[in-house]
Amino acid sequence: MLVKSQVKYIQSLGHKKFRDADGVFVAEGSKIVLELLQAGHIELIQLYAVKEWLLKNKILLAGRIDPVEIESQELERISFLTTPNQVVAIFRKPVFPAEEEPEGITLLLDNIQDPGNLGTLVRTADWFDVRRIVCSPDTANLFNPKVVQSTMGSIARVEVLYDDLKEYIVAHPGTPCYAAELDGEDLEQTLHIPRIMLLIGNESRGIYQDLSALAIRRIRIPRRGSAESLNVAVAAGIILFMIRKA
Amino acid sequence: MLVKSQVKYIQSLGHKKFRDADGVFVAEGSKIVLELLQAGHIELIQLYAVKEWLLKNKILLAGRIDPVEIESQELERISFLTTPNQVVAIFRKPVFPAEEEPEGITLLLDNIQDPGNLGTLVRTADWFDVRRIVCSPDTANLFNPKVVQSTMGSIARVEVLYDDLKEYIVAHPGTPCYAAELDGEDLEQTLHIPRIMLLIGNESRGIYQDLSALAIRRIRIPRRGSAESLNVAVAAGIILFMIRKA
Repeated sequence: MLVKSQVKYIQSLGHKKFRDADGVFVAEGSKIVLELLQAGHIELIQLYAVKEWLLKNKILLAGRIDPVEIESQELERISFLTTPNQVVAIFRKPVFPAEEEPEGITLLLDNIQDPGNLGTLVRTADWFDVRRIVCSPDTANLFNPKVVQSTMGSIARVEVLYDDLKEYIVAHPGTPCYAAELDGEDLEQTLHIPRIMLLIGNESRGIYQDLSALAIRRIRIPRRGSAESLNVAVAAGIILFMIRKA
Repeated sequence: MLVKSQVKYIQSLGHKKFRDADGVFVAEGSKIVLELLQAGHIELIQLYAVKEWLLKNKILLAGRIDPVEIESQELERISFLTTPNQVVAIFRKPVFPAEEEPEGITLLLDNIQDPGNLGTLVRTADWFDVRRIVCSPDTANLFNPKVVQSTMGSIARVEVLYDDLKEYIVAHPGTPCYAAELDGEDLEQTLHIPRIMLLIGNESRGIYQDLSALAIRRIRIPRRGSAESLNVAVAAGIILFMIRKA
């Protein structure tokens, strides 16, 4: 059974202010919640699920918390999805070990607005073993329920910071910064660079000019047809593929 | 001024049944509506916009229709977006010249469910000059307002059919079919194939087995990190890039 204060609390976590105050976020849907539970290092605060789900996954909750069994209609009241899916859970935000400058690829995101795009970027980064994502402060919030949803569990594995991108680039002079831009040079060759920052810009206006000026190379995906641009996550995926390609 | 019957009619076009009955669809937001107006071959049926937009784009409407000027509050009543954007227009569905088997790449989509994914796939296809997309009948509807939105205007340029994919593959024995699958062989080399069908599967369960059996090769994007899968549009983008790569 759900009490009114629980419903109000979960709904409040749709807002950054309340998530920040408690250092928590909401994940929902069986697939994502299971991934986060299995990740191990993410603390489960509370979990609300329908009976069938609890029966099947009891073992994952043993020794953690006492879950709240709810009815389908109750699930609808606390879900952020249009089609609620069995379980809603509150987790503590993940903490990553402080690392000065990770090996490999760092993804820099300048003002990504769409939650689905941000989540897909995190998921794509995880696939290509990107260790760190640095977002400009005006990028969408990582713990927005729609972003959490689109990361498909990768939120547990990729470190995401919010920082001034100019300062970040300047503070890491040992790592070359490549910018993805529609008027860059065509990406034709594999990029075999052991340590690299890849800068991706806003969905409509691209990368701020003063930021783009800090990149040592500007690259683009060769266009063969007529679309005006590629989706940011698709563009990032293609470039990451070409960096990671054997 | 909007009259009640117009509001009801536009809202009804959120449903496939009503779109099919009249052979029309809704596009909204300045960027997409402008792309469709400039495409030339898509008939404009009606257009509702705020004053500023009409003043700026009057010339594009000359000799086509008499647009309806509306207030911002009225726009909210007919918009399918959470953030309405200046203009909502009704267009006739595009018709493409019947072509037996187009040159180049044909994309086959098996049961893509998410409207944003379908729209992004159409946009990505357009970037890489894919001439035809064939969707299984259970794929999301192309003219769903969210799909139209995510195509970013590419809906005007890529022919999209709905057909039984098994029958389609069997009917085109001259075109090799490649399937994108998580357990396929790693995509390492450029695919220089003048005529190819690329088969992409459902977001959760992939490609139906009996369909996958018709592919002559099964490929996957090499995984370097830990994510369980890639987003379908990202995966398709990477493979299309490798087919189109010089």
